[in-house]
Amino acid sequence: MHGNLVVISGPSGVGKGTICRALMEKYNDLALSVSATTRKARAGETDGKEYFFYSLEQFEELIKQEAFLEWAKVFDNYYGTSRAYVKKVLAEGKDCILEIDVQGAMQVKKKCPEAIFIFLVPPSKEELARRITGRGTENEAEIQKRLKMAAQEMTYLKDYQYVVVNDQVEAATEKVRAIILAERCKLSRWLNCHGEDLF
Amino acid sequence: MHGNLVVISGPSGVGKGTICRALMEKYNDLALSVSATTRKARAGETDGKEYFFYSLEQFEELIKQEAFLEWAKVFDNYYGTSRAYVKKVLAEGKDCILEIDVQGAMQVKKKCPEAIFIFLVPPSKEELARRITGRGTENEAEIQKRLKMAAQEMTYLKDYQYVVVNDQVEAATEKVRAIILAERCKLSRWLNCHGEDLF
Repeated sequence: MHGNLVVISGPSGVGKGTICRALMEKYNDLALSVSATTRKARAGETDGKEYFFYSLEQFEELIKQEAFLEWAKVFDNYYGTSRAYVKKVLAEGKDCILEIDVQGAMQVKKKCPEAIFIFLVPPSKEELARRITGRGTENEAEIQKRLKMAAQEMTYLKDYQYVVVNDQVEAATEKVRAIILAERCKLSRWLNCHGEDLF
Repeated sequence: MHGNLVVISGPSGVGKGTICRALMEKYNDLALSVSATTRKARAGETDGKEYFFYSLEQFEELIKQEAFLEWAKVFDNYYGTSRAYVKKVLAEGKDCILEIDVQGAMQVKKKCPEAIFIFLVPPSKEELARRITGRGTENEAEIQKRLKMAAQEMTYLKDYQYVVVNDQVEAATEKVRAIILAERCKLSRWLNCHGEDLF
């Protein structure tokens, strides 16, 4: 039994992290992918747990080797999803969750079109603005920038298979869980696992 | 919000009725379609509850009017699924469950390719034989006939989107429920309901 790759994405501020944490706490047949990065480990962070930490040179060499399902450079640091890590999780029979932004998701879609693509949306534009503002860590200009980015990211909705409204964390988590369970029942998956020799 | 049409099918003896009853007891956003028939109402049966009862002439007239999503003649009686009834349930925003055999499902597939097609399978051939035998209502020749029919019905598996193993009623019911919830999150459905004007 081979796991499925599940991409959970959506606009900035929609609550991807919250949903993914809720899934991890509740279901032990799922695993969250650990990203690779070149940013320095902070106090308390362990290599292979929060991130896989690499030097700039190492990371760029891995890019050349096509070791990443997706990667991006954010300011001065690289972030990416290791193909080998995902492969290992799937071989263990677990579904592997990627919590990534729309750009990353589009890279994964090219490389793994068979993955499951779920787009989280806020209940409304107003609610998203409230969530972004509510973090309280950003100034007005920063908030405006993030809102503009979120609106731009929303245009990627059409490239996903499933849309889940993140109105309440528990309800949204259960919908994502339902999608994961349903995909395991898909005919193609069944034929892969069982062949055609049941009867 | 418009409901989805959900076809639950599978070989004779797999437990379609049990799963459908479990779904009806648990979820009030689902409705089981009431079949039309020409067989006589039994004591305690009410028109429009267990079945819609029709005369032979009425039923044949309805067939001519293409009033059925699917129909069949079993021995001397007709059985069918009323298109108008299903339409009414869906318009109320409920998902409408059809518990039908593979022949009926193939008729529905032609008329409503957008429906959700779920195929229930037994955990093994042996278990299906045990279930068919366990009913205790049929003689050996009848059992052999039903087993042969079940094997033939299993070949329709490839015409369905989802396969659910009915090993334990509760687990199988939850898988069917997950499929129903997941289908509500499908992108096409989302775009139908919300248009493209969220942001």
